[in-house]
Amino acid sequence: MKIDLGAKNCLYPFPTTLVGALVDGKPNYVTIAHVGVIEHGSVSLSMNKSHYTNAGIKANGTFSINIPSVKMVKKTDHCGLVSGKTTDKAALFKTFYGKLKTAPMIEDCPINMECTLTKTVDFPTHDIFIGNVTATYCDEAVLTEGTVDFSKVQPILFVMNDKSYWKLGDKFAKAWDVGKEPK
Amino acid sequence: MKIDLGAKNCLYPFPTTLVGALVDGKPNYVTIAHVGVIEHGSVSLSMNKSHYTNAGIKANGTFSINIPSVKMVKKTDHCGLVSGKTTDKAALFKTFYGKLKTAPMIEDCPINMECTLTKTVDFPTHDIFIGNVTATYCDEAVLTEGTVDFSKVQPILFVMNDKSYWKLGDKFAKAWDVGKEPK
Repeated sequence: MKIDLGAKNCLYPFPTTLVGALVDGKPNYVTIAHVGVIEHGSVSLSMNKSHYTNAGIKANGTFSINIPSVKMVKKTDHCGLVSGKTTDKAALFKTFYGKLKTAPMIEDCPINMECTLTKTVDFPTHDIFIGNVTATYCDEAVLTEGTVDFSKVQPILFVMNDKSYWKLGDKFAKAWDVGKEPK
Repeated sequence: MKIDLGAKNCLYPFPTTLVGALVDGKPNYVTIAHVGVIEHGSVSLSMNKSHYTNAGIKANGTFSINIPSVKMVKKTDHCGLVSGKTTDKAALFKTFYGKLKTAPMIEDCPINMECTLTKTVDFPTHDIFIGNVTATYCDEAVLTEGTVDFSKVQPILFVMNDKSYWKLGDKFAKAWDVGKEPK
């Protein structure tokens, strides 16, 4: 039996990220899980216009996406609870820079991507920032035979419906393969 | 030590969905995991322009997002391997309709959302469809105290890097809570 839930977004879980930008010349990080993939090399961030970080992304045309691991959940959640307007969140992490020079990244996160802003789509309450992934860095420890292994990354998955963080479970099938025989 | 991977999108995993639309008056379903959340009640789909389904979404201004469970992985993957141009994929499922009448949904999927197209953003190889969630249905079996419980939904998580499907792991922390004390 189907239950009518009303108009409720149940498209979850999403990977929780720490988005980095320079704001007034200083690194800042904010927790964003409302992300998307646009084309294979470009990604989107849905960021409430109230966030301190948005002005830095617009000013520099660059940002970073850092993927924290489960063990970083306290700091990750914290960066969504406090604003860069009043708190120096970069003090929580060791920052490094790559090719873009204006996209601060978090050393502790196993995956870091530098992105160049290509389009901003204006929605009533949110800026949708779309960027090309320009360079990607990872910890050697999360690679298996040269490919990023998400069982080693241990990303923090976010579900809005019950405001919760989840671990990634087991890999169980190959995509573009397991369905060659649908039955 | 950080390894430079080049420009590589590592923003994963994403929930694998079956997107439904009427194409030439017939229901069709396509596997899409490059999705996003835009504002809390609106979502995005990144759909290669080669997909048969895109024309149906544009013609009707509606689509559905169906979230299959792990046990549906063969049929789900299959809908990404074959095109509606040559295969009647609706024959794999029992279809039902809700309020919009032009957004076919899959009875077997534990979660179904009817969406109204609000914006199409044109990218070189992909149509980015942004839609408002108009109505949501779920199986009674996936609710816990009236809220969708993703441990019961058992979504199929997609990682592009090694072309794989993953299960959801355990819920381990509360969002906007666990980070009140970051240390």
